[in-house]
Amino acid sequence: MPAGVETARDLVGPAIAASVQRLSPEVREVACYHLGLPAAGPRAAGVAPRGTAPGGAGKALRPALALLSARAAGVAQERAVPAAVAVELVHNFSLLHDDIMDGDAERRHRPTAWKAYGIGAAILAGDALLALAQDLLLEGPSPQGLWASRCLSAAVQRLIAGQGADLAFERRTDVTVAECLDMAGDKTAALMACACSIGAIYVGAPAGLAAGLASFGAYAGLAFQLTDDLLGIWGSPQVTGKPARSDLRARKKSLPVVAALASGTRAGRELAELLASPGALSEEDLNRAADLVEQAGGRTWAEAEADSALASAVSCLDKTAMPAGVRDEFAGIAEFVTARQW
Amino acid sequence: MPAGVETARDLVGPAIAASVQRLSPEVREVACYHLGLPAAGPRAAGVAPRGTAPGGAGKALRPALALLSARAAGVAQERAVPAAVAVELVHNFSLLHDDIMDGDAERRHRPTAWKAYGIGAAILAGDALLALAQDLLLEGPSPQGLWASRCLSAAVQRLIAGQGADLAFERRTDVTVAECLDMAGDKTAALMACACSIGAIYVGAPAGLAAGLASFGAYAGLAFQLTDDLLGIWGSPQVTGKPARSDLRARKKSLPVVAALASGTRAGRELAELLASPGALSEEDLNRAADLVEQAGGRTWAEAEADSALASAVSCLDKTAMPAGVRDEFAGIAEFVTARQW
Repeated sequence: MPAGVETARDLVGPAIAASVQRLSPEVREVACYHLGLPAAGPRAAGVAPRGTAPGGAGKALRPALALLSARAAGVAQERAVPAAVAVELVHNFSLLHDDIMDGDAERRHRPTAWKAYGIGAAILAGDALLALAQDLLLEGPSPQGLWASRCLSAAVQRLIAGQGADLAFERRTDVTVAECLDMAGDKTAALMACACSIGAIYVGAPAGLAAGLASFGAYAGLAFQLTDDLLGIWGSPQVTGKPARSDLRARKKSLPVVAALASGTRAGRELAELLASPGALSEEDLNRAADLVEQAGGRTWAEAEADSALASAVSCLDKTAMPAGVRDEFAGIAEFVTARQW
Repeated sequence: MPAGVETARDLVGPAIAASVQRLSPEVREVACYHLGLPAAGPRAAGVAPRGTAPGGAGKALRPALALLSARAAGVAQERAVPAAVAVELVHNFSLLHDDIMDGDAERRHRPTAWKAYGIGAAILAGDALLALAQDLLLEGPSPQGLWASRCLSAAVQRLIAGQGADLAFERRTDVTVAECLDMAGDKTAALMACACSIGAIYVGAPAGLAAGLASFGAYAGLAFQLTDDLLGIWGSPQVTGKPARSDLRARKKSLPVVAALASGTRAGRELAELLASPGALSEEDLNRAADLVEQAGGRTWAEAEADSALASAVSCLDKTAMPAGVRDEFAGIAEFVTARQW
């Protein structure tokens, strides 16, 4: 794991734990359980969190990027901690709500919050984290908190738009690759772009630097989503923290699946038939579906797109002035979270 | 209906409709349906909104209070429209999410958003309205938008805390009247206090005026919640827009019910037994439960508390300097929304 992610965990972890202490007892318990914090109540006993997906970097990835972005502006990363916490809280707001919407029962090798505490409690915990994120930015000593807050809010709106499109795609059979890429841009890349620039914005960096970092983050986020979609089909449960073939099981219109369906190949048509069949898919069906995505070229396409997005991300870094060490850490994190693990 | 509520509807309605247009198509459709706006899609056809509960003032009550609070500061109410819209969006965020948590199938004489569009879509629409509310305050021309945003966010956190307590109460049999009053203070009074002061804050009123208006709003909000709880037992479906005895049906620990349970009377004990019985309550059970709340003194207590809170609210108005016409409009709205309708 890149050193920056470990450092971010040490620096931001206590600040996240402190911020959650502000919540009322009932809401705090659910938030702590979801975040894997020790204050969680009896229902979390015996199910200690054991790392996060993918690659164990999940929990401090966005904070690490936010702290790095402050360093890109030549400012000590400690000054950007509220921004790093805010972006991580928003990420977890979306996880709490998305798990309900997607019906996901497991995350990080544990029952999801709605499974452990009920849908109502998980909705509320998500709401609380979203509001808390904005509080942290607006109450801080930084006069740029207002701008950081607006950037975060814009990312939240895109995240919501992307999740809305994702839900709508589940009921459609004619989703195009372009629509699916747009959706990933909203659902994943927007918050990653925010994470990569919010620290810089919060410490008062020039707009050009913030824009360059946001572009890097948008490409890196797309590469990350493509990698996540590939893991959702070919990743092992040990790596993802979810059941094998989880995206296929849920018949998600993930990027490799949509590319396969839109391929015009015989395998693509067979895949469409298989996914349209009524009832739950058997293990055999799931393996067959994975093979069909591959035969239709969906896997190769997604891997190539991920490589291309990663290259674009690195190119954005090279066009943006920042200390060489910071540039290398950004590139290292982007490469780490998009590394092949299937 | 007080004239201020009608005026607020005319002034704020178009601004709400315009703000919702920023949402992505899938999310916008659900938000419009919930808000009773015409842009809603096919699922809303034939189910035009027909007024709001209680007393038809629901949809513009908080905006009317927000606009009045700007006038209390001697500023034209038009300047406070973004604040009025923001508070109404937050109110609707909470309705969208609470209806899911409470399992409520009807609101304003129509299926609730989650019933019409699914839980996931309703969660998202609520999220979007919450984020939108903050956007409107922070992007506006008013330099006090930041303070207004922080006040609104504090109200949101109390609202979440109150709803969390309310959910927890459902699983408990030993809720005290004091706990229940605290819960109502968080769940209802905090946003009402915010509505009564946010317009003043947004236009730069002195802190003393904002504080006086917030105190008025907190008492008025408590009176409103007590009235709402009484309507939830004795209100007619025509007035509430919900099925008769809806709170008893859901075995809610509403204020009159908790007062009855804590009364130490025989009727209180009988009520506890009835509410603890397994299975759905019959119409006969529901009528019996309402009678038991009344015999145990829960109704008389709640009516007296509502009267007392209303008197305290009016007394706050009288201690706060503002134009007499504005004072009378505030008092008129508070009296209107707590008027006996059972």
